[in-house]
Formats: sequence, C-alpha cells, structure tokens
Amino acid sequence: MSAHRHPFDPLTPGEIQLAATILQHHVPESGIVFRVITLWEPPKAEMVPFLDLEHGGDKMATPPARVARVQAYVDKVLSEFKVHLDQQAVIAHESLHVRHSHIDADYMRRAELACLADPRVKEHVAALKLPEGATVIAEPWTYGTDGISDMTGRVTMCWFYMRLSADPDANYYAYPLDLCVELSDALEVVKILRLPSGEDDRAEAGKPNEFDRGKIHGSSEYYPTLSSPPRTTVKPYHVSQPEGPSFSIRGNKIAWEKWTMRVGFNYREGMTLHDVRFQGRSLFYRLSLAEMFVPYGDPRAPYPRKAAFDLGNDGAGLCANNLKLGCDCLGHIKYFDGWLASNAGMPLKMPNVICCHEIDDGILWKHTNTRTGNAAVTRSRVLVLQTIITASNYEYIFLFYFGQDASIHYEVRATGILSTAPIAMGTTVPYGTVVAPGVLAPFHQHLFCLRIDPALDGRHNSLVVEESHPLPVSDAAVHNPFGVGYATRSTTVARETGLDLDHAANRVFKMVNERRRNPTTGTPVGFRLVPCYSQPLLAHPTSFHAKRSEFGAHAVWVTRYDDDELFPAGKFTMQSAGGEGIASWIAARREGADGKGGKVRDEDIVVWHTFGSTHNPRAEDWPVMPCEKMVVGLKPVNFFERNPALDVPVATQAAGLSVLVEEGGGVSRGREQPTAPESIELVCLAGGGFDCWLDNPWIGPVAMVA
Amino acid sequence: MSAHRHPFDPLTPGEIQLAATILQHHVPESGIVFRVITLWEPPKAEMVPFLDLEHGGDKMATPPARVARVQAYVDKVLSEFKVHLDQQAVIAHESLHVRHSHIDADYMRRAELACLADPRVKEHVAALKLPEGATVIAEPWTYGTDGISDMTGRVTMCWFYMRLSADPDANYYAYPLDLCVELSDALEVVKILRLPSGEDDRAEAGKPNEFDRGKIHGSSEYYPTLSSPPRTTVKPYHVSQPEGPSFSIRGNKIAWEKWTMRVGFNYREGMTLHDVRFQGRSLFYRLSLAEMFVPYGDPRAPYPRKAAFDLGNDGAGLCANNLKLGCDCLGHIKYFDGWLASNAGMPLKMPNVICCHEIDDGILWKHTNTRTGNAAVTRSRVLVLQTIITASNYEYIFLFYFGQDASIHYEVRATGILSTAPIAMGTTVPYGTVVAPGVLAPFHQHLFCLRIDPALDGRHNSLVVEESHPLPVSDAAVHNPFGVGYATRSTTVARETGLDLDHAANRVFKMVNERRRNPTTGTPVGFRLVPCYSQPLLAHPTSFHAKRSEFGAHAVWVTRYDDDELFPAGKFTMQSAGGEGIASWIAARREGADGKGGKVRDEDIVVWHTFGSTHNPRAEDWPVMPCEKMVVGLKPVNFFERNPALDVPVATQAAGLSVLVEEGGGVSRGREQPTAPESIELVCLAGGGFDCWLDNPWIGPVAMVA
Repeated sequence: MSAHRHPFDPLTPGEIQLAATILQHHVPESGIVFRVITLWEPPKAEMVPFLDLEHGGDKMATPPARVARVQAYVDKVLSEFKVHLDQQAVIAHESLHVRHSHIDADYMRRAELACLADPRVKEHVAALKLPEGATVIAEPWTYGTDGISDMTGRVTMCWFYMRLSADPDANYYAYPLDLCVELSDALEVVKILRLPSGEDDRAEAGKPNEFDRGKIHGSSEYYPTLSSPPRTTVKPYHVSQPEGPSFSIRGNKIAWEKWTMRVGFNYREGMTLHDVRFQGRSLFYRLSLAEMFVPYGDPRAPYPRKAAFDLGNDGAGLCANNLKLGCDCLGHIKYFDGWLASNAGMPLKMPNVICCHEIDDGILWKHTNTRTGNAAVTRSRVLVLQTIITASNYEYIFLFYFGQDASIHYEVRATGILSTAPIAMGTTVPYGTVVAPGVLAPFHQHLFCLRIDPALDGRHNSLVVEESHPLPVSDAAVHNPFGVGYATRSTTVARETGLDLDHAANRVFKMVNERRRNPTTGTPVGFRLVPCYSQPLLAHPTSFHAKRSEFGAHAVWVTRYDDDELFPAGKFTMQSAGGEGIASWIAARREGADGKGGKVRDEDIVVWHTFGSTHNPRAEDWPVMPCEKMVVGLKPVNFFERNPALDVPVATQAAGLSVLVEEGGGVSRGREQPTAPESIELVCLAGGGFDCWLDNPWIGPVAMVA
Repeated sequence: MSAHRHPFDPLTPGEIQLAATILQHHVPESGIVFRVITLWEPPKAEMVPFLDLEHGGDKMATPPARVARVQAYVDKVLSEFKVHLDQQAVIAHESLHVRHSHIDADYMRRAELACLADPRVKEHVAALKLPEGATVIAEPWTYGTDGISDMTGRVTMCWFYMRLSADPDANYYAYPLDLCVELSDALEVVKILRLPSGEDDRAEAGKPNEFDRGKIHGSSEYYPTLSSPPRTTVKPYHVSQPEGPSFSIRGNKIAWEKWTMRVGFNYREGMTLHDVRFQGRSLFYRLSLAEMFVPYGDPRAPYPRKAAFDLGNDGAGLCANNLKLGCDCLGHIKYFDGWLASNAGMPLKMPNVICCHEIDDGILWKHTNTRTGNAAVTRSRVLVLQTIITASNYEYIFLFYFGQDASIHYEVRATGILSTAPIAMGTTVPYGTVVAPGVLAPFHQHLFCLRIDPALDGRHNSLVVEESHPLPVSDAAVHNPFGVGYATRSTTVARETGLDLDHAANRVFKMVNERRRNPTTGTPVGFRLVPCYSQPLLAHPTSFHAKRSEFGAHAVWVTRYDDDELFPAGKFTMQSAGGEGIASWIAARREGADGKGGKVRDEDIVVWHTFGSTHNPRAEDWPVMPCEKMVVGLKPVNFFERNPALDVPVATQAAGLSVLVEEGGGVSRGREQPTAPESIELVCLAGGGFDCWLDNPWIGPVAMVA
C-alpha cells in the first residue's frame, strides 16, 4: 500500500479503516469509541534521508512505514495507539486516563439536549419570561479552566441564547440570555448560573432577570433571507485563465512556478505543508498553524471560563468548511478533500477542505530607465492555498500565499459573529462593547501560533536576531562625523528561548544556515520572519489562561526539533491546567533533560511565531464581522544570489487583455483587440524619473499643448 | 470658467496657460522661468460651507474662486505668486530668494553634460582605465545637506557609473565608479572626489583607483532584451467584467459602492484625495502622501549627501509614470491624466498618471450556522487607485484601496534598482550589502509621511490614544479574581505632539468626533489609524538628516489644521537646513504663536503617520527589487451603527463563474455552465463548526464510506 502513497500523504480512507480494524482486533473485548485516526508522521530522522534520495531522483528509495496515530476511548479510558499499517500491528500504546479528547460533536449535541430537558433549567428559562415565539438555544462550550470545578471530569458549559424568528438561520447571538449551565461528564446539570447584568452585578446564583423587551430589535440579522435586501451596485467580476492554471498537482504534491510542496490535512491542524522547496532547494520541512487561543477579558465569573483553544479543543480539520466554487474561491480552483474518522472508526469524507488557485497581486517589480524612457514591469502571480474553519460563532480563514519572488505570506482572516453576553439596557462595562440593545461583545484576544520548521539547505539551521542601530557620533573609534551612519548588530541565539518584537530597533528574526554562504554577499543563506505586530497575552502570568497558553507570552520562540512537539500549548488542551507548553519544554531542557541544554545554534530548530489581535469589538463588527486580516511573512534574505523573480516575463497588454474605461465608468469600449505581440513590448514610456527629464532630449516632452 | 470645474479639480490646461499669461503681463520686463503652476487649493474656511451646500443639494452654491499657485524664477530670484484666475490678477507675491525650487530636469541634464565635458573630470575618468567600450554615465543628484558646502547657492552632485553593453537599457548601477563631482549653481566643477573602497578608506581627494576588471560580470541585467530568457510557466490570467466596472466617474469625482471622493493631482504630491465620504457622511477632507525621505546610512563622506526628499525635491507628480493598460493595471481601467507646466509656462500633459480599477480581495465576511449547515459568504470587492513614480533608481507604487466595509488602506510598494556605490573586491562594510562583484548597496531608510485630514461628521475632531491593559489582580477595588480581565485606557490628546507606536500595549490611535455619539455603543464616532510598524529615523538628532526630516522622529503626529501646512519637512526641502518642519510648527505654537497653545481637542486637526522601512539590502533585491509592501489602514471604529458591508450580496457560483480544476492542474474541465441562479443560493454546507457537529442530525454526516 505504501508504495502508492507518499510518506507525508494523509491516511487514505482504506488506511483509516484498516487502522480501526487492526485496533478492534487488538482490543476485541472492549467498547471502542474512536476519536482520532490520523497519519503518524514518520520520524524526521527517517524522512530526511528519504527526501534526499527522492529529490536526488532515486525512485527506488524505500519510504518510511505507514503508521496511524489512533486515539480512542477503550472502556472509557482515553488511550493513544501507534498502529503499523504495513505490519498490521499495534506497536505502541499509551493510556491517557487523566486527559480529555477534543470535542465530541455527538456528546456536545447531547449536552445541549440534556441541558434543555432539565426541569430546573426549564424553571429558570420560564423565569426569564421570554417573548411569545422565542426559541431557546443552549450553546455548549468546553470548560476553560478557572480552577473552580473538578479538573479531572469532563465539564461542559452551556450558554443560552434565543431567536425570535421562526427561521432557524436567525442570529441567536443577538439575544444572549441571563442563564448559564454547567454540566458534568454524565451530562447532569451541576450548576445553574445567572450572568452579570452590569459592572457591579456579580450574581452567579439565584433567579435570572426577566428578559427586558426593550432589547427586542430588528437590526442584527446577517442571513440573506432575513436581512435587508442586498445592494445591487456590485457588477460581476470573473477571472479567466484560458490556458488553465499555472500549477500542476499530482496527489498531494503541488508544483507551481519554482515551488514544490506537499499538502497535508489532519483533524487538529487542518491544512499542513511539507517539504517546501524553491528551485529544488529545501526551505521548510513543515509549516502549520500549531495552536490558537481565544481568551476573553471579562473578569466577571463565569466568563473566565470562556477561553477557546480552537485547534487543541476543536480541531481545525474537524471544523473545516466545505469550500464552494465561485463563493469561497474565485477563478480556476483545485480542491483537496480531507478524510477523518467517525467515532465508529469509519472514514469520514470532508470534501473541499482546501482550495488552491492563483491570483494576480499587482506589480511584482518595475523599473523605468529615465535615459531611454523604457520601462520593464512584471505582474505578481501568487499561488493561494486556503482553508476556512467555523468555530461556533467565529470563522477563521487561513491562507498561504506563495510568491514568484520566493516569499511566503501566511494570512489569517477573522470573521463570523462575535460571542455575546447579556447586559442591562443603558449599562456599559469597561471590558466590552455594546453592539446592539442588551448585547455585550466582550473584549478578547485571538492568539495564533505559526510553527515554522526550517530546513534551509539542510537540517542544521540557526536563528539570528538582527537590529539596526545608529553608529555613535562622538566615538573616536567610529567614523561617523555627520551622525548619519548606522549598522546592524546580530546575535545568533544560543539556547532555546522566547523573544519579543521591537520595531523601533528594526529587530529582524532570520533563520540561517551557517554552513552555507551566499557567494555574492558572503553571509549565511537565510529566510527572514516578517512578524505580525500584536499584543502578547494580557492575562496575568498566574492565571490559568497564561499557564495554559504559554506560547502567548512571547512573539517568537525557538526550540530544538522534536518529533513530538507540534503543539505549543501541549498535546491535550481540553481542560488543561498549564505547565506543558513551549515554555515548559524549554525550561525542562535548560535543566539538562535532553543532555544538550537546549542549544539551538546550528541544530535542527523550530521557530514559532505568536501573533493575533486584541479584539475590542466595534459596532462595525456586528452582526457579522468584516474580515480582520493578520499577515506573517517569510522572505529570503541572501538565500538566493539575486532576485529569484528576475525571469518573470514582462507584462504586456497582449497578455493582460485589459479594458479601457471611458468617462462615466459604467460604459466601456468593450474588450480591446490585442495588437500582435511584439517579441518584447516596451510597455511604458516614463513620464519622469528621479531627475524628472520632462524635457529630456532622449525621450522628449510627453506632450505639449501649443 | 469656474462654473465647469469643481474647486478641488486641478487646473485645466487653459487655466495653466491663463495663469502664465497673467503673470507674464504682471512682470513684463523680466525673464520668467516657470517652475510651478498649480491649483492654490481654496481655504478650508471657504470650502467647508461650499461642501455643506453642495452635499445638501444646492446646485447654485457659489464655489470659492479659482486661484493658481505659481512659482517662478523672475530675474533668477525664486518667487511665489497667487494668481486669481477669475479676476485675472496677481493678488499676492512673495520673494523666496534664499530658497531653491524643486529639481529642474533641464538643469540636471545640463549638469550631467557639464560634468562629462569638464577636462579635469575627463582626466579622472581616464585614470580609472575603464574597459574598452565603456560608456560613462554621470547621475546628477540634489545635494543632501551635510554642512560642508555653501548652503545658499545650488549644489549638484554627480555620481558616476558605466555600462559595458552598447544597449542604453543596460543596468549601469552594476558598475558604480570611484568618482564623484560637485557642481556649482553655474555648473562649474567645484570638487572632484574619489569614493571610499572599503571601511578604512576615507579618501575624498586624489586619483581614483583603477577599475578592477575582476568586477566585470554578467548577472546584473533586468531589462528583457539583456537578461536571460524569461520563464514560460506563467499562464495567462484575465479579469473580465461583462457589465463593466461598478464605479462611475464624472470629471474627477469617483462614486463607487457607498463611497464618493474627488481625485486631485499636483506636481509635488502626485495623487491627492479630497472630500472622501461614505454613505454621504464626511470622513476625510484630504488624504495625501505629504513627504518621503530616503537617507543613506553610510557614514563615509561624501555619502551623507545622499538623502532624497522624493516629494519636496523631485515631485511625485513630476515623476509620475504613464501607466499602461494590461501592464501596470489589470482589468477594467479608468485613467486620469495630469497637467503640469513647462519652464515656459505651457501646459504639459502627463498621460495616465492615476489608474482606477476594481479587484477581488477574497472573502469579505462569512458565517456558517452549524445548526442548519447554512453559510452566507460575501466576496470583497475593492476599489484601487494607483500611481507610480520613478525616482532615479527607485520606483514607488502608491495605492489607495477602498473597501466595502468602509475601510481604507494605503499601500506603498518600493521597487526599482538599489542605489549603488563602489567597493573593492573581497571587502565588506557594516553599513551595506555586496550585491554583485564590486557593487555595494548601502543601508538606507525609506520614510513616508501620510497626511490624514479627518472630517469625521464635521471639522471638529480629536485624537484619542487607547491602550489595552490587564486589570490589577490583587487590587481589592477591582473585580478580577481570576486574573484574566483587561480593559482599555484612553487619553484624548490635548495639545499638538508626536507619538510613538506600542504594539505591546495595543496602542490604538483613533480620530473621533466628540460631538457625535454612536447610538449603539454610546461612544464618539471615530476612525482608527492602523499603523505600519517601522523604525523611526536612525540618524542622530543633531545631524542634518534629522533636522531636515523632523517628521521622521515619531510615527504619529497631530497638529492643528493650517491651510499652509501640507509638507512635514517644510515647504522647501531642496538644500534645506532643518528647523522648518512639523516639530518646529508645534514648538512655535506651544510658545503661543497662534494664541491657542497648540490645542487639538475638538478642533480642526491633521494626523500624520510616518512609516517606512529600514532597508538593509539583500541579494534578492538585485538587480531589480521585488516590491516591498508597506500598508497603513484607516478603519471605522463605532462610526457606523453596524457592519456597513452587511448588505453586500452573498456570493454564488452563478455570479462567480469559477472553474473546477481536476487532478494534474494543467487540464481543466473548461468553464462550467452556471446553473440557473436561485433567488438565494445557499453557498456552503459547513463541514463542522465550533461544536463540530459531524454527526449533527440537522446536517447529517457529510459522507461516509461503508
């Protein structure tokens, strides 16, 4: 079987079924609830030699074995199994009895039903005195640890909303109710809480406030059947690629321009990228969003329990949208499907979880020689890989952009609906925004962690921190008589650590291979992290939020590579109590746990970038939020000998086929017939230049009115 | 005449000619060399009432008079004249005898010729012993003040290069020569300097080093006739808008979606925007790039003279490119022409200096209701206004992007060719990168200043600095028992000042109208500046670079509005010595010069954002640099009652007409026939959601393999 699959390829449906069958034979007497059947990625120590052979053209290279990672409740105890698919054997087994698996959709649905069916809950709902025709919705959330409830049993919180419309697509977040329920693992109602109505209202128990009919409003619908008629001003816009896309895809391998890479997909991280190369040179062994954390800043109980690990708890793969042609993706689109496993161990298809297409991104490079008036301009074609997840109220769009200039940009777009809480009419609180009558959108943060596993011309890489500083003015040893000189100061990071951003010092984080020098510049080949400037975690270091999301304390982390370290808040975030994330790994190794003291210079390293937004909602984010973009870049710095996009053909109207719009705008002359393409069309006569040769005899005045 | 023009419209060719004629009659005895004939924008005190009437529908409102700003050398003395076009009279006249006008293209060409013709220069060129067939190029630059040469007479520096190819489009920056010439105002060679060859070489006089033939190389060409054959992998990509663009343009007024604005153009700032409104509500009175400064960080004389004010010295309008359909702009393009004046006072057409078109920018907003599986997704259509300037070696692309969500983004893309200096083979210096044999690309900064003149629901606006801070944990007065709470702290800026960025505090700069509150949130309506994080000016505060570019010291400035304060490094930057920029204005008013002590709360204010890049070149920037992007945002914050893009129609394949690509990628099934559009196409069945309803009975399992 493995002969047909690349070692980085996700498990096939057949492999998923095989893994389940193997495990079922291994523990035949037990009831098994499968939670995960996914690829156990081969150890890097096996993969690197294989990739070297593969890229060296050795088609007979033996790939590492296909192994499945299976997590399942066996007799109600969570266990992880390593299932060898070629040998058809369970080769390792770890009992995880104190840990919780990620969200079980079926269980959460039952939590909602149990909650709504509970007589005491019904009594409380009745006490709310809701308007006629209201439909109550209980939205189950994982329990964001606050130290109060039992941290060994599974705890579920249900937050209450209602809709007044009969249409099930009505926006129920517009009516948060004064009610919250805590459920036990056995789905018993443990606590019924009422919610604060203002800053000074701390009430957690007792009868809820009756629903204030003054909160009823009609301006919070986003769904097209329910909201106002759409504008009619947006005219159609199509992308056409008459010769098809510039990429070619075989299985999960994408080749586009000078890039090659492999796309992966799993229940937790969703889209992953592997073995990313440019012109055949190795750049990144693996790129993935490794975790995200959404802690809420409302200090009033029970809101400190709102703290979502959308990867660790929910799974970006599990929550991946089925992307639709012409809607989520415009142009010539190649989709990738994902495969997960049901609780019964059956393969579950997730159609169209990743889309791949090209966009035009404006100008790539341009120069006009003002002496000749001749310009050369190229347009930037970009390859886009997109995946979208729905995490309850919010949507996150994750995009990788690959440039012809060897740059990679990773973008997160946050959209969807704000998570809301009730607030008394006419009241405000300092940690939230009132976005509709009686609707509080509490302040919160979105913290993402991008895991960057560099393999720049090989496994041995280093992280260099470079800053730009003025040269001293009055120092006799330094020649800087005019006070204008500046130079860079570089530090190669010696040991694992977390680092902060400093734009005022132009602090730059470079991943380099010190064993390979750029023949032109004489410096090590490298890639630069272009960070997204954002605020670190605001929660106090002693809080559970901080202890659970160690990666939120710094913007950049560097660690030694470890096959088992993929998730910087720990492998199990569900009701985690902290002390098992990236800072803990580093601290343990500083104490010598690995015998290397956490040395990271000229080693196999991983760089992690934490970024995001402090999202203090605005009225414009309601009832559905326009995308908030966050962008991270990876750009070559003296990796190549020169601009790797130098050979992109210059742009011409013969290729670009654009249309001139006359005054008025609504009327165009229609598509112009392209003129016969010259061998090279000189595309631009400059109007000027640094020297502004308006009267330059070489190009003459552009035009003159007599 | 004025009846046909809007007061913000640039001067027409006829008005330019009229202004020249009026001045020629005014000073008939003199030789006049015209330098500027441009619109003297009406005083804001006159414009605001006019705009109020205009937007109130009063078509009979009397516009402010048409007035021309004319700068000219009259008997070799620079003077500025205020020419009333309706009255056909010079109504004001100021002699500027100690100031220099911006670059005179004809003069600079003569400087180059004078330099090359000088016998001593020829002797030095001969001493270089250049290879057979070399063509020497002398590139004139303005004199970036260093305090050494006379600061009253005009000084020009010529930097020397050569090309070895007979093709005039060969990249001569690949061969910087060891020679530099200083010219007097009378174009006499004042000094011949040789250039340093390495860090310890300070030589400014004496014989230059012979050209080292080891520097000859063939890898620095970018022009398509000279460089290697282009790649052939990029397949055509067209944008089609069968019903034309969504914008409509009459004269200089653009209406698109809910936006209206007027486009201006002048010799100095290039593209300007006026009276920017959304849904008829006033947002910005004027938006413009107000200055840019490119100081070089090489401390060795004479390099401290390399410090370019590309607006004040060169003029973004003067250097604007003639944009070409299908090359600089893709899709359905409306062009705007610009009009300048020749030295003789004749109108000079600058064709296609601004292009206007639409792009698709991916997803605008999306939400999937996991209970119904129904998704609503909208695509983001963006209006783009682009202009490009060539400043000698560099190109700058300036773009305004208008979003359907009422956001504005201003983007600068830096491209073109690095300014180079000679360096001995095998040598390095700490303030530059060797990008080709013998070619040093010195470190430098690009500092841009965006001038934002807010008019948020009126002239009286304030600047608020807001930060997000954790609530104290152990303070009995604050309820934050779990240590997770945070809140914002706001300060309304009372007096004019410069401010710095602080991402770690999530420092946000909001322009607000304190007289107008958002009915939902109860807070003042506002727009937020989303800054570009970058390093301030590195040059020492005592240096001429710092004194001349006061705006480079801080990222955000707020000043009281003044009709005469458009340029934050002062009105005349050519050989300026400092002390006349934004910090000086503020200091003067603090001392009471305006009787208001620089108060800016609830006043007519201007906000200035300084941003850019510390550009320490990399090999990949050579021989032509892929665009380096810098982006600034302006986003509504509680300005609107809800998402202003809520009514964008949901995306459908019937409208998007995209094409499915099958395995392989090179082959597509061809454009799918759109299905008959339903009244609303439910575009997306979610694969999951926060609760990951994979087995959700409402949507059922997505697919299952038996």
